[in-house]
Amino acid sequence: MSGGLIVREKEPLNLEMPFSSLDGFITPDESFYVRCHFPIPEISPENWSLKIEGEVDAPFELSYDELLGMESRTIAATLECAGNNRIFLEPKVKGVQWGLGAVGNASWTGVPLSALLDRAKIKAGAIEVILEGADEGEVDKSPKLTGKISFCRSLPLRKARADVLLAYQMNGEKLSANHGFPLRAIVPGWYAMASVKWLRRIIVTNKPFNGFYQSLDYSYWDRSGPLPTLAPLAEQQTKAEIARPENGETIPANSTYRIHGAAWSGTGDITRVEISLDSGANWREAKLLGEPVKNAWRLWEYEWQTPANPARHTIVARATDSRGVVQPVERSADRGTYMINHLLPVSVEIR
Amino acid sequence: MSGGLIVREKEPLNLEMPFSSLDGFITPDESFYVRCHFPIPEISPENWSLKIEGEVDAPFELSYDELLGMESRTIAATLECAGNNRIFLEPKVKGVQWGLGAVGNASWTGVPLSALLDRAKIKAGAIEVILEGADEGEVDKSPKLTGKISFCRSLPLRKARADVLLAYQMNGEKLSANHGFPLRAIVPGWYAMASVKWLRRIIVTNKPFNGFYQSLDYSYWDRSGPLPTLAPLAEQQTKAEIARPENGETIPANSTYRIHGAAWSGTGDITRVEISLDSGANWREAKLLGEPVKNAWRLWEYEWQTPANPARHTIVARATDSRGVVQPVERSADRGTYMINHLLPVSVEIR
Repeated sequence: MSGGLIVREKEPLNLEMPFSSLDGFITPDESFYVRCHFPIPEISPENWSLKIEGEVDAPFELSYDELLGMESRTIAATLECAGNNRIFLEPKVKGVQWGLGAVGNASWTGVPLSALLDRAKIKAGAIEVILEGADEGEVDKSPKLTGKISFCRSLPLRKARADVLLAYQMNGEKLSANHGFPLRAIVPGWYAMASVKWLRRIIVTNKPFNGFYQSLDYSYWDRSGPLPTLAPLAEQQTKAEIARPENGETIPANSTYRIHGAAWSGTGDITRVEISLDSGANWREAKLLGEPVKNAWRLWEYEWQTPANPARHTIVARATDSRGVVQPVERSADRGTYMINHLLPVSVEIR
Repeated sequence: MSGGLIVREKEPLNLEMPFSSLDGFITPDESFYVRCHFPIPEISPENWSLKIEGEVDAPFELSYDELLGMESRTIAATLECAGNNRIFLEPKVKGVQWGLGAVGNASWTGVPLSALLDRAKIKAGAIEVILEGADEGEVDKSPKLTGKISFCRSLPLRKARADVLLAYQMNGEKLSANHGFPLRAIVPGWYAMASVKWLRRIIVTNKPFNGFYQSLDYSYWDRSGPLPTLAPLAEQQTKAEIARPENGETIPANSTYRIHGAAWSGTGDITRVEISLDSGANWREAKLLGEPVKNAWRLWEYEWQTPANPARHTIVARATDSRGVVQPVERSADRGTYMINHLLPVSVEIR
């Protein structure tokens, strides 16, 4: 544990929230999971600037102070690591062994990416926007990309213009180094590898970008077309996670127990969370808490009148979103080691 | 050896021409290298058809007889496996260990792909054409593509329309099963993985295709843009290969020896081949034979008056093409295990 977070990796730093500690819509900075690919860059705002270049008529550079002087916006957004829940995959796969807690929800304050793109005057024919972080290091997959590379991801121009925020505040405080100081992208509804931290450059392109982190990594086999094609991970898949009970928990018989958790989806609002107390044979409606907030998770609860006699129960939660997408029972192998949203049972003992 | 060819792999079948046997502009079918990814499909023309579909207004299907009834064209084209010369890489890398002979030049007769595309009436917004072969099997790289896949590659629409031939004859004879019967693509100037064999389907798309054989395989890191991007292999790199002498050959002193070979380039005509007899210190002009034929190799020779005394010599050949591209001394690591065209020395003993 490190300040309440589970250490999954020290170098680079990968910290997980113990999901059983979920207790509110907003995840505080110190409880928010941390995902790094390389050492955290030490950036002082005086020496930092953001460049906007590529297929634009008016490339420019922006200082930290100039950025803070621009009109800002605050949004809530749930970030989930694309490898969240990986520890539950069988057989075991490579990669950081995330449990339930590589996910968090925060409010983010910053400048809409569209404002910068408008100022740069995008040329006709531009199709993507590459976000480049200042974090760098070596990678090792075949074909080998030699030397140091920076973490970067591209977005379709349409998404970049729609709702992407360049955030310098998290939950009303200056962004911490762990979370991307001085500036990070927030790409609502997408897995968090798209929300590039320690932003230093924005490049508009007229060709599809096929960088390391959207081809050899953070990709899956998309079979929606005539033949399978390697596609970058994008939208968060519809999912409910149970915070309590934890797997293996003992629960008093003949009592009222609050089963609760969070649910989210990158393809719509959460419209329903159901609970099964018998391993998926029967389902009951859970209560959605609060009001829906676009691109943020929805907390939910279910009051369980526990049985009078000792027994084992396997509890499962499943979410449905406003597009009718229901969380799947089984997992598609085409997703590699990412996009893990099949149903995860929680075993408890009534005593 | 198998009918004069070196067996590099039996299943799937991968056969190489002993390059020292080069003795003419045209490589006969039985001397032509064979590259397979999966078992060779057994196809009878009666049960075969070619489908043209996707982003077209008039999809259609074509029988073998209909194809033979269309206006035909005959072109010469050099095909080179993208992994040719792999055996010379140090340290050793995975993949079929091709020597000098995964290359050949033939005349190909068939129907221009553009004729079929015109007939299918391509929709506005189409950007690529996928060629799919009937050869199928399983592959194993991460992210794992489960189940059987067919061999397929896409071409930019511009290239597909420009000069791609769908060939049913090789050197005036019906295509053999080894070379793609009943129909294969010939993509002039490109590495031969693009010249899909056993063609069964042509799919026009309005999205970039990122299939297995142009992303996890047959790709390289392209650094021509602002950030490295994984790109499909395409044009053959400028190269001269020495057929004779072979490495380790003994040559009589005080005699006339004919050093000879072939040179080719996917980016222009070969304008020059030079020979060094001293490991690259000094260069002499070789004689280009015949006339240039677009997208075909150029044979060359150099008459060497060998020294009077016993000695060791390291012979190197290097090619230059009409765009001024000179064969490189060193190899770029970004090319992975493909596009091998750095200078390859041949050691001989004068005795």
